[in-house]
Order: sequence, then C-alpha cells, then structure tokens
Amino acid sequence: MRFEIGLSLALCAMAPGGRVEAAERTSAYDAVDPFIGTGGAGHTFPGAVAPFGMVQLSPDTDIRPFKQSYDWAAGYRHGDPTILGFSHTHFSGAGHSDLGDVLLVPFTGEARLDPGEVDQPGSGYRSRFSHDGEVSKPGYYAVTLSDSQVRAELTAGVRTGMHRYAYPKGGSAGVLMDLRSSIYNYPGKVLWSRVRVAPDGTVTGFRQTRGWAPGRKLFFALRFNRKMTAHALYDREEGIPYKGFRQPGRTPADKAQLEGRALEAVFEFGPLDGPLIAKVAISAVSEDNALLNLQSEQAGFDFDALRAQTRRAWEQALSAVDITAPAPMRTSVYTALYHSLIAPGVFADADGRYRGPDDQVHAAEGFTFHSTFSLWDTFRAEHPLLTLIQPPQRNNDIIRSLIASRKHSPHGILPVWQFHGLETWTMIGYHSVPVIADAYLKGIRGFDAQAALDAMVQSATYAPYGGLGDYMALGYVPIDKEPEAASKTVEYAYDDWTIARMARAMGKTDIAKTFEARAAHWRNTFDAETGFIRARKADGAFRTPFDPTAINYGSDYTEGNAWQYSWFVPQDLGGLIAAMGGDEAVVKKLDAMFEYDNSKLDYSHAEDIAGLIGQYIHGNEPSHHVAYLYNYAGAPWRTQARLKQIVDSQYKPTPDGLSGNDDLGQMSAWLVFTSLGFYPVTPGSNEYVIGRPFVERAVLNLPRGKRFTVTAEGLSEAHPYVGKVSLNGKPLTRGFLRHEEIVAGGELRFVMQAEPNTSWAVKPAERPMTTTPYAP
Amino acid sequence: MRFEIGLSLALCAMAPGGRVEAAERTSAYDAVDPFIGTGGAGHTFPGAVAPFGMVQLSPDTDIRPFKQSYDWAAGYRHGDPTILGFSHTHFSGAGHSDLGDVLLVPFTGEARLDPGEVDQPGSGYRSRFSHDGEVSKPGYYAVTLSDSQVRAELTAGVRTGMHRYAYPKGGSAGVLMDLRSSIYNYPGKVLWSRVRVAPDGTVTGFRQTRGWAPGRKLFFALRFNRKMTAHALYDREEGIPYKGFRQPGRTPADKAQLEGRALEAVFEFGPLDGPLIAKVAISAVSEDNALLNLQSEQAGFDFDALRAQTRRAWEQALSAVDITAPAPMRTSVYTALYHSLIAPGVFADADGRYRGPDDQVHAAEGFTFHSTFSLWDTFRAEHPLLTLIQPPQRNNDIIRSLIASRKHSPHGILPVWQFHGLETWTMIGYHSVPVIADAYLKGIRGFDAQAALDAMVQSATYAPYGGLGDYMALGYVPIDKEPEAASKTVEYAYDDWTIARMARAMGKTDIAKTFEARAAHWRNTFDAETGFIRARKADGAFRTPFDPTAINYGSDYTEGNAWQYSWFVPQDLGGLIAAMGGDEAVVKKLDAMFEYDNSKLDYSHAEDIAGLIGQYIHGNEPSHHVAYLYNYAGAPWRTQARLKQIVDSQYKPTPDGLSGNDDLGQMSAWLVFTSLGFYPVTPGSNEYVIGRPFVERAVLNLPRGKRFTVTAEGLSEAHPYVGKVSLNGKPLTRGFLRHEEIVAGGELRFVMQAEPNTSWAVKPAERPMTTTPYAP
Repeated sequence: MRFEIGLSLALCAMAPGGRVEAAERTSAYDAVDPFIGTGGAGHTFPGAVAPFGMVQLSPDTDIRPFKQSYDWAAGYRHGDPTILGFSHTHFSGAGHSDLGDVLLVPFTGEARLDPGEVDQPGSGYRSRFSHDGEVSKPGYYAVTLSDSQVRAELTAGVRTGMHRYAYPKGGSAGVLMDLRSSIYNYPGKVLWSRVRVAPDGTVTGFRQTRGWAPGRKLFFALRFNRKMTAHALYDREEGIPYKGFRQPGRTPADKAQLEGRALEAVFEFGPLDGPLIAKVAISAVSEDNALLNLQSEQAGFDFDALRAQTRRAWEQALSAVDITAPAPMRTSVYTALYHSLIAPGVFADADGRYRGPDDQVHAAEGFTFHSTFSLWDTFRAEHPLLTLIQPPQRNNDIIRSLIASRKHSPHGILPVWQFHGLETWTMIGYHSVPVIADAYLKGIRGFDAQAALDAMVQSATYAPYGGLGDYMALGYVPIDKEPEAASKTVEYAYDDWTIARMARAMGKTDIAKTFEARAAHWRNTFDAETGFIRARKADGAFRTPFDPTAINYGSDYTEGNAWQYSWFVPQDLGGLIAAMGGDEAVVKKLDAMFEYDNSKLDYSHAEDIAGLIGQYIHGNEPSHHVAYLYNYAGAPWRTQARLKQIVDSQYKPTPDGLSGNDDLGQMSAWLVFTSLGFYPVTPGSNEYVIGRPFVERAVLNLPRGKRFTVTAEGLSEAHPYVGKVSLNGKPLTRGFLRHEEIVAGGELRFVMQAEPNTSWAVKPAERPMTTTPYAP
Repeated sequence: MRFEIGLSLALCAMAPGGRVEAAERTSAYDAVDPFIGTGGAGHTFPGAVAPFGMVQLSPDTDIRPFKQSYDWAAGYRHGDPTILGFSHTHFSGAGHSDLGDVLLVPFTGEARLDPGEVDQPGSGYRSRFSHDGEVSKPGYYAVTLSDSQVRAELTAGVRTGMHRYAYPKGGSAGVLMDLRSSIYNYPGKVLWSRVRVAPDGTVTGFRQTRGWAPGRKLFFALRFNRKMTAHALYDREEGIPYKGFRQPGRTPADKAQLEGRALEAVFEFGPLDGPLIAKVAISAVSEDNALLNLQSEQAGFDFDALRAQTRRAWEQALSAVDITAPAPMRTSVYTALYHSLIAPGVFADADGRYRGPDDQVHAAEGFTFHSTFSLWDTFRAEHPLLTLIQPPQRNNDIIRSLIASRKHSPHGILPVWQFHGLETWTMIGYHSVPVIADAYLKGIRGFDAQAALDAMVQSATYAPYGGLGDYMALGYVPIDKEPEAASKTVEYAYDDWTIARMARAMGKTDIAKTFEARAAHWRNTFDAETGFIRARKADGAFRTPFDPTAINYGSDYTEGNAWQYSWFVPQDLGGLIAAMGGDEAVVKKLDAMFEYDNSKLDYSHAEDIAGLIGQYIHGNEPSHHVAYLYNYAGAPWRTQARLKQIVDSQYKPTPDGLSGNDDLGQMSAWLVFTSLGFYPVTPGSNEYVIGRPFVERAVLNLPRGKRFTVTAEGLSEAHPYVGKVSLNGKPLTRGFLRHEEIVAGGELRFVMQAEPNTSWAVKPAERPMTTTPYAP
C-alpha cells in the first residue's frame, strides 16, 4: 500500500515528458518506503531523518505503560488510529527503547493538556488520522490530523527538525509542547526539566530522564516563523513536597520560565494567513548549543529548501547501489539500504562538542562524534556494509567516536550499547572490537590504530565487565557466577580473534598470540556429547537440566538458545564443523534447525524472538549468519535454498514487512548484502561468503570511485540456484569473495538455474575461511 | 566558653617570649569565635571557610524532616549530642536553607550506611562528640568523634576543603560518603547523582537537587593521600520502576561507577601509620572542573600549609579594622566582622567558568564570579560594609557578577536571592539595585555603568515580577492581586530612588526623573489616619481588617507587620516624619514601638521573628535601621539609648549570642557599623548616621591605604551618651558622616558622658539626609 503511494507519486512527478523507463523504474529515492517495519516487529519510524541525522522527527501514536512499551519502541505503530504529536528523537528498529523528546502537537481552538483516550475523540490532544494522504519519504513525512484538520508536514536536516502546520482557514493556530511525553515511559522517568520563552519568542529548555541511558540530558531550542500572541507554561505535577519559591508571573501566561518534572507549554498565534513553521534543534551539551545547532543548517524557515537539501543527501547516500529488480524487491532493498544509513548518527553539535559516556562535555578534534551504537546487532553486517559503501570519513568518524568514548569511559572500555553519548550496558560482548578490527583490516586508517588496539585490549580485559575476570581465569564464563554465560563465552572468543587479527596486521605479535589463544575458548563451552554450545559452571560441569529449545532472560544464552548459539564460532567454523562431527553431520544439524517443529513451543514471553523458521530465528541476530554455514560444510546450494526461504518469508514491502526489530539497520543490512549475493559471516576476515543474488543487477558505486557490478543472469522464481559464477570474466570456483576484489571494482556474474549445482565451491579449499588463517 | 579556648590557645602560642600586651589583647584572628550563632537563631556554622570561599566545610549534627529543618539551616546546632559527618557547602546564617553537599564520615571497623538514632549510640554512622577539645577558628575546625575515637580536623582554601582524620592506633581507616544527606532534606530532593572511582583512586561525581535552587548541580572531586585498599558503591533506593541495565561489577566492591538517587560510597584504607587526608573540591560546571579546582590551591595533601594559607588570608581580611575594646565586645565585633566576610563568595572555578541563572556554563572575562546573594538582607549594611572595607576588586567582582547574572537571567533581571549561580526568588524587592548604586556612588567603578543602569531599569520594570506591572500602573502593589503588597510598594520605591541617584550621577536625566517619581510611591501606601504603611487594594481602599501587630506569611507585609514596615522610607525620612505628624509624634511612635507590651503576642509560627524589643524585632532585617531614626526627628540621644539596649540584649559572645539569623552577614555588619558609631541607614545617600561607639578605639585600614580612626573618650557603662563629636579635630555638629570623609582618612572622636546631650545634632540642618536631596 505504501509502496503504491510512493510509486504513484513518482509517476506523477514524471508525467510531463517522462521517459518510458521512468515509469518502469522509480528513482532509488522514490523506491524507499519508510513505512516498512512500522507495523509488526520492525520498530522503525516513518518520520523525517537525514542520513545519519541527529534529529529523527516522527509521529508518536501512543505512549503505553512501561510493561507494554515494547511494541511502541519507535513511537509509531502503523495500526494505531490516533497520533499524539511529533517528537524529535527515535531509534530505528531498537528492541529496548527510550527517546521521544520534545513532543509538539498542533491544535486549533482550546489547548488540551492531556492525551485523552483513544476511543474518545476530543478527550485530549491526540487526534485521529488516516493513512490516506499520509506520506513518508526519506527526510519527509506528512499527515492530516483529522480532529483539528491540521495538515502537518515534517522534514529534518542533520541537527534540525522542521514542522510545517497548515491550520484550517480562520481557525486559531496553536502548538502544545508536552515535555512529559516519552517513549518507554514510566512514572518518574523525567528527573527534571525546564522550558523558557525568551522575549523574542525563542523557546529553549531541557529534560533529564532516568531511562535506558540513566540521567540523559536533552537540551532543545525552538523558534517559530510567526510571532506568538500568547504562551502559557504549566507544571502538571501535584502534591510534591517542595516546589521552591514562586517564579515571576502570576498565571501560566505570565511566566517566562518553569522548571519541574511534568512540564507543558502552549504557544498561540491566532488565525494565520499561511502555514506555521516550527524549527527545532537538540543538543546534549547545553541550551546555547541547541541554539547554535538551530542556526547550523539554515538561518530562516524555508521548509522546502531544507526538505530538498535532505532529499539530495538521501539521493547521494542511496546512490551507493544502483539496483535493477522487480519493484517489490527493489523497494525492499532500497528501504533496507535507507534503514542502514540512519545509525550510528551524528551526535556532535555544530561546534564539534558532545557529551561522552562520562556525562561530561568534550570537544572533538578532527572528527564528528557519532553515537547510537547497537553493537551486538550491528557488528555483524551493518558496520561491514558502512565500511564498504560509506565514505572513509564516515567510518573514521565512527571509529574515532568509539575510541573517544573509551577515553571518556569511567570504566576505560569501548561502548557496548551507547546512545546520546551514554552507555546503557545492554546486550553482551565487546563488539566495538570487531567493528574497529574489520574496518582497519579493510583499509580504514584515519584513526590512531595504537589507541584503538589499546582500547580493544582494555575492553577485553576489564574484569568487572560481564564475567571477564572469570573468563580470563577459567577460559569460559561460569554460569553459576554470571548469566548468559554460554553466549558470553563464544562472543568474547570471536571478539578476541578480531583483536588478534588486527594485532597481527600491526605487527604486535605478543598481543596477537594472547588473543589467538583466547579465540579458542569457544571449545571450553562446547559439549561434544550433545553437539551444542552449553553453559558450564565454575566447577567445570555443564549446567543441567539442559533444554536446547528454552529461551529465557538471564538463562544460559542471550535472547536465544542452544540451537542458535551453537553456530557462533565465526572465527573457526572449520573447527566447529569438525567438533560437530564433520560436513554431513553439520548439514543435517542445520537442516534440523530450519525444519524443527516449533508448533508446541511458546516464546511469547521473549520479546525479541520473532521470525521463526523452526529453530532458526531471523528476527533476532544470533541466527543471521547461520544460513550461510552450509557453504562451510560443502553444501552451498543448501545456503541458496535457505536464503530464498528466508527472503521470501521474512521481508515484505509492507508496514509489517520486517519479521524482527530492524536493530539500527542490522536486519536491513542483512538484506542488502544477501540481495547482492554475498554476506560478511566473519567480520575481520575480509571475506564475504557467496550466497545467491536476489536482484537482476546491482552496481556498487564504491567510495573510492570504483564500480563493482553484480549480475544475475536468468534470475527468476524458477531459477533459484547458482549455476556458475565468474569474477571479471573468469570462473570463480570458490564460495567466497575477498574485500580487495570488490573494492578493486569489476563484475561478479552469476548464472542462475533451476537445479542445485552440487559441485560448485564444495571442495575444502574452495570454502570460506580456508585461506584466512584462524591462527596464523 | 569558646572564647576562652581561643584565648588560651593564643596565650600558649605566645608563651615563649610573649609580650605583656599579647596576653591582654589577642590577635584579631584569635578574637574570632565562629561558634557564635551556632546555637539559638543565628544559623551560622563552626566549620572551615576561607574569606569569601566557595567551600564551607563544616560538621552537620542532624538532618531533620523538612518541616523541622529551620533550626538546622547551617547543618550544625551547638546543642546537639551527635555529629553525622562533614559536608562541604553551608550558608552562614540563612533563614531558608539547602546545601550540605558531599557528606564524609570517618569510621573504623564496619561501615554503617545509615545515620542511626541520636539516642542509640552505634545504631548508625553518627557519632557522639563533646565540646571539650572541639576547636573552631577561622579556616579551621577540629573535633573528636567519641564513638570511633577519630580526631577529625578540617580546613579549607577558596575552592578546596581538606579533612585530616587521625584514627585510633591499629584500627582500620574508613570513610563513608553519603550523597543522600542534605540540609533541608525531604523525599525526592536528590533528583540524580553519580559517584565514580577512577583506577588511581580519584573519586568524582555529582548530585542534582530539587531544593531551594531548583535543579542545582554540584560536581565534586575527591582524592585521598593514601591508597584505598577497597571501595564499595551502593544505591540505597529500593523498588523504583526502572533502574536501567546492570553496570559492570557484581558487588558493591566491584563497581567503578554508580548512578541513582540514593548513593553512598565506602572507602577503606586498612590500618594506617599516620593520618588520612581527604582533599575535596566542588564545581557547578563539571567533574573535570572539580578536578581542576582540586589542584588549584595545592598539588598535594599538606593540611598544615593550607590551614596556614587560609589563616593568613583571614588575618589580612580582619586587619581592615583594628579594635580596642574589652574582650567580650572585641570578640563580638571581630566575630561579626568574620561573619560579614563569608558571602557573597567566589563561585567561579579556577578557569573562570561558572554556572549562571540560566543553568548554563559561562566564562567570566576579567572578573571572578561570586554568588550567594541574600540581597533583601545584605543591601542594608553588609554590602555597604564590604564597599567600605574590602578592596575595590572584590566589590567590582560582586557587581560584575550581578550584571552577568542579569545577562544570563531568563527574565532579564538582576538577582533577587541567588546562590550557586541560581535564582531562588526568595524575599522581595530588587535589591541588587541599591547595592550597585551605593557602590557606584561611593566610587566603585570597575564595571560597565551603562550595562548596570540598564540592568537596574530592566529589573524595576519587569511586569511579571512581584506585582511590578500593577505597581507601575497604580503607583502601588495592590494586595488583592499580590501578597505582601505594603512591603513591596515601599521597598520598590526605595530601590527606585537609588536608580534615580545613580542615573543623576551618570547624567541620565530622563531615567532619573522617572524613578524619582516612582520613589514617592511610598506615599500611596501610607495611611494618614492610622499613621501606618498599609496594603491597599486595586480599588484604592486599604485592606481591612487591619491589625498592626499581625505577622503572617503572605499577609500585607513581608516577615513583619505595620510597626516594622512603616519606617521603610529611607529615601525620604523627612517626608515620612512630616506625614506622621512631625518630630514629636515620631519620637512618641518610635518609643511606642520599642516599649510595646508584646507579652500577649505569639509569633512562634513565624520562623524569622526573633529578637523582640516590643515591636522592634532585631532578629529580622526590617527593623535594622529603626533605632537610628530618632536622629531624623531631632532626638539623637534616644538613638544612643536604643542602640545600647539593642547591643546589650541582642549580641553575646556565646553560641546562642545572635538573636536572629545572621543572614549572610547582615546581623553582623549591623554590629560592626554600630560598634564604630555610625550606620548606613540609606545606602545610595553616601551618608552614615551617627549613633554611638561601642569600642574604645577602632582604626579602619581602608582599601586605598588611608586610615580612619574612631575614638570614644570616656566610654563606659556609666557613659552611654555622646557628649561631643569632632572630626579631624574640628567639632562635628551634624548627626551624620559623609562617605568621602571616611575614605579621606582622619579621626572621628567621641566624648562620651553619663547624661544625654539633647542639643547636639538636633537642628533640622544637622540631621541626616537634609543635604542629600530626595529629588534634586
């Protein structure tokens, strides 16, 4: 449905004198449908954001009590009948959540200060809306609020959001600001907040929240293009023991400033002869810096100019890949590409200053600080995608932000799950490490490699973190001392391997040897008897009872079970296959996983478990590399079949088209890579495992100017298997590509066929990771 | 008692080869007894502070529930049997309160995390103590904690506090930090806080409180001179809905950082072979700045050097006046001088940065930001005293801080009651205005006078503040729209007069005329029928019923009634006397006030009402100039008699020796001036009304190098009246001095006698304010 709207708009735009091809093939920009993922489990938002933008200006449809918040992690749910208003910060696809800062609500007539009930129109400030006339494009969103008949349009630059509200003719124009409103809300979340209105109508303030990032400070600045006729400031909190002395002003309309924990502001403009524009900037540093950011992209209120500027930025970013495919697949892949270009986002102010994990303000020298690092998700494919297609500067900014964060960390370690500069300690591992190592090994070098390696080693040896002290002493994390011990052990061991890889490349042999040894620690948690990775106790025994299908928080595994986690040895899949009994046993086990009868299992208590194919769970990350593992066991045609099964069932160009949380681009980056025919199973190896393409043709316009073209001859539903592969005209018999081969430019040509080719890339020497040594 | 200790110490110090005079007359430093005011209503603290220091490191004896907090406004009450610990920020004599930041408690053995009960020794971390061996000197405090037998000594520089703890031999040394502890405490006061322990043992953190100054942020840095053997961090808050994900560390001892609303930290050092020294700095800017401040006075841990440095600073500051008087009077006056040299204090960090009333960080250029402005109190005598005896730089810093605060104010107005850079909106008036005008007219010129005048005018015309809109429209504040309207009207009118005075001096005739007209507004609230200043309603009628003895919060008056407030026309006392019916009527009315039978009145509900002599209330500021008003009615001998009555009954050199809150030096500055024989009844007039001296001799060592000597020939209990006065050898027949006469240097000589001289300074032309025109 959304896709049709996008297409029809594109057709409209091209109607006068448009070429025939134009009608057949929309632009990359128009192929994106940001509504994908806004229903179901995707947790994406439909609002306006610039590539890697600091502001994500988007509608919030509901704020549910804390325990029900999961489904509203991005503020908007496509099935909801009402919109509360428009707030300025959103995660794209996160499982846990926060944000929804500085909610603005346009209204006519009397201001209503509470949201009201969904089923009682007019009972509060929320408004009904319909998807007819609702538009979402990269950097632009529009909707008509049915109750007030206000047409609301949103656009965003990197550091500013802009609202354009067209009020019904003759109606008075008003805007409500609700500083109480918050995603993942609960009583007491707002620790403190302030709003002030300067004589010139500039509104500034902040709120500090005790949310996912404890004690997060968000400053804002807001200006309108029209002169206010009145304003009113409210503190809605009653009965608190002490509110201090009375500020100047007898009435809400008299007050220039208010502080408290439940603030709202109403701004009135009377009847207007044109639209009202509100320009908003945020900052983690100060109100002054929010004002600085407010001027950073545009001095005035030219909505269309900001929208056009952000559109150009998206066109540029999306031009990294030129895709030929049927419209639904093109929409899916371009939307996935769009979703992979949102985070980690810029989080430095226009003067380069930012708030770090120590909650202190720092000045970045020579780079732009980025934040929102969902690293447990994104080290897998999202960061490798950015490393491949984004300019080196972006990747250097990201890595320098990680190193700076480590420098500012009170614990002296790299980010785990960071947003708005602050650490949340969410998920496990030290996956900043593979991000840095992978980029370094792929030639991203605009950072201090020694400082990076120091940070990586420090992060891998900080005893108080996640059982690392025991891991170093015992060679595994003991489950009787630390939850999720099996997952932690295997993820630490992989991260360790990437440290060793980077240390080798830097000639730091001692460090390399230490971490090569640690990379083998996965073996300490592998149970040869059951063939699963299992949690071991401090006394060496595996914990019992053992149920490989059980999924529980704080169990032996992290958001998963033995079925998913037993494959997490990307640094030594040859070793794993041998330990599991060899190729045939592994293919059987993989098939058993995909074909597991899960009809009797209930995972509804585990929020992140979605997108099940047997015990393969595409909606969550531990499974993401698993379909590619047949290749390592000499059965690449099985990978090809599984990929088709996954792509067909887990991605649709519809609001509920993502089977799991997009996780700041990881679900999407999986699709982008997979559609091209290859995937980075082992970041740090510089190898991409070849799967099968899902697009007829794709041209990668690489950052250093080269082009790498993928063609899929004969691709169709009836031709789901790879027959032959050639690279630059020469047959490619191995089942993987090297990073150097892609960045050199050239052509990867697939010939697709109806039947599996069971002889291509099956020999041991043709399999991935056979020439990338586990321990050189 | 305290005084004897000081004296005996001085004698000890001088014993070897000490001169005879030394035993008779202690040094100014040794004459100070900081215990004065720590009992009764004084609200002073006995701990360590440097002159105008940012840190006030002092023991807290109790934290009472909010409604009982008044008596513990400075943390310490001399009558309490236990000490909780030592915290780093305290007001000197405030009525309302806050602060008590970063409480440290030395302990041996097991740490106790809660204060425990006063009557159950050992039930918590509080310890019994006795006044034997308790020492308080300017910049130094020492006490033995009876329960742990720790000898605790405190000293402070401008930006650092130092603790020296001697533990009992063989006992383990520990320090508890309770970030929950707060003066004027109530549930939820701590909005957010953090503590972190760096690998080198540096402890940093902050707390943000919703107290008197809403949302105040206090960062701190702490280093010990010994290596910690262990630490533990605790969050004592239970059952809050969301605490975020788990930070690294399984146990309190494992954690490097904790955030929350109820934090404590325990630091352990094992048995030590010498004292433990803790050095602490605070900052309103950031933890980094707290670390900077920590190094600003001393790199190491030399307690004695810091103590000596601060002692020298006090000796220098106290040398402004050299007083000859019997020991009790000398102690009272030097302690008053000491108390007048604490606030407003330095509040800029070592790099010049500070947090302003906009809660933003600013960099001061060319001055040191000062804060803690209790202006409703201190415009009367405290600021005039500083203007007279402190170097111009201090006064310029103060005025530039006021102007900078106005620049940063969200309301665009000067401070009302500011501390730690933040506005509290306590009390009434815009009394920054007379402070600036008085200093300007007395030749303090190291600030931008035009910016100052702009700020003064802006503050006097900001309609939303305290009924100013109505005041400007009606000529008075109407009581049916604004509480305390009578007091506001007369205080605004006086403040307006000082604007006019400064504008005249600057040649700004238009401004002068406007505010000269406003200065007459006191007449609009004067009721000729009753002879009292009364509150008028918007319709012009005086509010009834009218009870000139009633004192209630939010009534017609501010912390007072018609008796006290009817004298507040310092800019036009001639006009007031005429309105009241002339000299005789006024003397009768003044006598009626002092001799009012208050035995049937109960003011126990009004916290600040203390020190009653009839309806004269010396414990609160509205009365402070009243005893001097007989002079204006041609009866200076009556002033002389009343001053003796006040000094004898309201000031004693004992802990309960202050009859009211010292109010950041105002009660004390009153005594300093009064003891010298003159008082600034009308700041902005450059006149000091002559009362009578209470010291035999006083030499003012003035900032620009001149000396002004006051001698009181024949002064004794039997000679309480002024017989003759001469200035520089010539008879002085008028009843006032001019500022210029003092700063020129010279000698003011009183000849005291047994009987009143009823002919000295009684003619109209000899009275104060006869040559300082009300409206030139």
